[in-house]
Amino acid sequence: MTKTKLVMAGLVRPLIEPRLPEWVEPHWFMSKDEALELAPMAEIGWFDMYDKADMAAVIGAATQMKWLNSIYAGVDGMPLAQLKKQGCVVTNGAGINAITIAEYVVMGMLTMAKGYREVVRAQERHEWLQDSPGKVELYGSKALLLGYGAIGKLIEERLKPFGVDVTIVRRTPGRTSLAPDAWRARLGEFDWVILAVPATAETDDMIGADELATMKQSAVLINIARGSVVEQEALVNALRDKQIGGAFLDVTTPEPLPADHPLWTLDNAHITMHLSGRAQDKMFIRSATRFFENLDRYRKGEKLEPLVNLDLGY
Amino acid sequence: MTKTKLVMAGLVRPLIEPRLPEWVEPHWFMSKDEALELAPMAEIGWFDMYDKADMAAVIGAATQMKWLNSIYAGVDGMPLAQLKKQGCVVTNGAGINAITIAEYVVMGMLTMAKGYREVVRAQERHEWLQDSPGKVELYGSKALLLGYGAIGKLIEERLKPFGVDVTIVRRTPGRTSLAPDAWRARLGEFDWVILAVPATAETDDMIGADELATMKQSAVLINIARGSVVEQEALVNALRDKQIGGAFLDVTTPEPLPADHPLWTLDNAHITMHLSGRAQDKMFIRSATRFFENLDRYRKGEKLEPLVNLDLGY
Repeated sequence: MTKTKLVMAGLVRPLIEPRLPEWVEPHWFMSKDEALELAPMAEIGWFDMYDKADMAAVIGAATQMKWLNSIYAGVDGMPLAQLKKQGCVVTNGAGINAITIAEYVVMGMLTMAKGYREVVRAQERHEWLQDSPGKVELYGSKALLLGYGAIGKLIEERLKPFGVDVTIVRRTPGRTSLAPDAWRARLGEFDWVILAVPATAETDDMIGADELATMKQSAVLINIARGSVVEQEALVNALRDKQIGGAFLDVTTPEPLPADHPLWTLDNAHITMHLSGRAQDKMFIRSATRFFENLDRYRKGEKLEPLVNLDLGY
Repeated sequence: MTKTKLVMAGLVRPLIEPRLPEWVEPHWFMSKDEALELAPMAEIGWFDMYDKADMAAVIGAATQMKWLNSIYAGVDGMPLAQLKKQGCVVTNGAGINAITIAEYVVMGMLTMAKGYREVVRAQERHEWLQDSPGKVELYGSKALLLGYGAIGKLIEERLKPFGVDVTIVRRTPGRTSLAPDAWRARLGEFDWVILAVPATAETDDMIGADELATMKQSAVLINIARGSVVEQEALVNALRDKQIGGAFLDVTTPEPLPADHPLWTLDNAHITMHLSGRAQDKMFIRSATRFFENLDRYRKGEKLEPLVNLDLGY
């Protein structure tokens, strides 16, 4: 019997190899060139790479692939049209990082509310501050949450006990939700605008100069989605002119941010270098567990999850 | 009819004077000396001062006082025995700062979990970190919460949706609580030890070298109670020797901490300068509201709240 060929990074070999079933033949790569060489034989591929252009090239070469797995939540940059054409399904890391990202969002809100960055700097000066550099309470504040996937739901759960009035956006609006065409007009009501949407053509630049101008002058923008969701030049201007209170940016355009970019030095810009999903030690364990669950489903011809919609891109 | 004499700080006069009823005769002080001069005539006194020794001297001079109000939660340093002898009741600020302090505790846990202080420093260097300096999730961790007053309850409420297993200490132990004599033996089970107890003779030095040695090497101590609750020299040693993972210290001994104190420079000591209760802008509004509710009760001879137990000291 021909075995099913699996191509994946050698880095996770210790977590995967001991648990692989008989019917799978693994091939491990340690470099982009090895990945490119092995890709064409892959029926199942797991090609996560830090360089997104390299990753796209390798995935493009995997022309026999029927299942692509990824630890990343975002699939922007992947050749989705080609994958669809060759009948390849894609499972992503949606939800794997959701817990730590939700925790990061609450941390961002609290540190900005209390002016914690100034407290850190005061400790470095050995200075006992007499008053708090931030005097905002989450309690009684209003948050607009854009994006209601795994991460959005966990953020909402965590914010409610703080007494934050969380408004979400969805097709069937209600007391605590707005319709997709209604949130822009209401932007001025919120203390926090939290971006947790997938990066798609539809969410590209969804926050621009107009949206920033509508926000409260004290409001804070939190972006843990993708840099592309915000018009960055408009954001820099809004922060510089104090049109909004501040921004907590886990993501930027580009990444890494060049050393001379103005966002580094703006007093109300808080940059966290796309670390939110990495601030955990369970990412690989959770990914391996999910991979083996899906491997079993794949063998039985069952539906894998979570499946990326190759047309919508998330 | 003789009016009831009220002596209080001129600072809060704008919030109080317009709403005072006819039967009250207010006297405002702007300095310690004025306070000392006015104190003996006070039937109702509100003598909050940053310098606790000055405050104790003024309260000691208020020998006719029947009701002492304070914005502070702690009454350590006040001449409680004398107050009891002259039949003076004491209402404190318990709960006024509870919301912001509970928020501060969660912020402390999250910033330590994610290594956020290192992220702040990296931004100052314009350095895009490739990995998170902290990789702990609150999710699935275990916290021991010592002190279950207004603040403790709010901390518990906020931590539960994070998936933190919170154990409290109380006289009737249960699945999520330990008896007062049982927590020391179980200290090694917790990732977080949170001190939210009142400062009394009973809680003085309740965390010393033995307790610190029993804690997990990765555990974090959070103190938002009083510096006196922890044996500070033992704590410095435990942090220096990495016996515990770190400490988030809103309170220290003494306060302010001298500029040459080792706690400022220890890499795993996070000092927040007793700011947790000040990180809000509603403290005076909440205190004024409560004061007027109690003034009404005082007039009617009803019980004031929250009343400090002058024997227990909280």
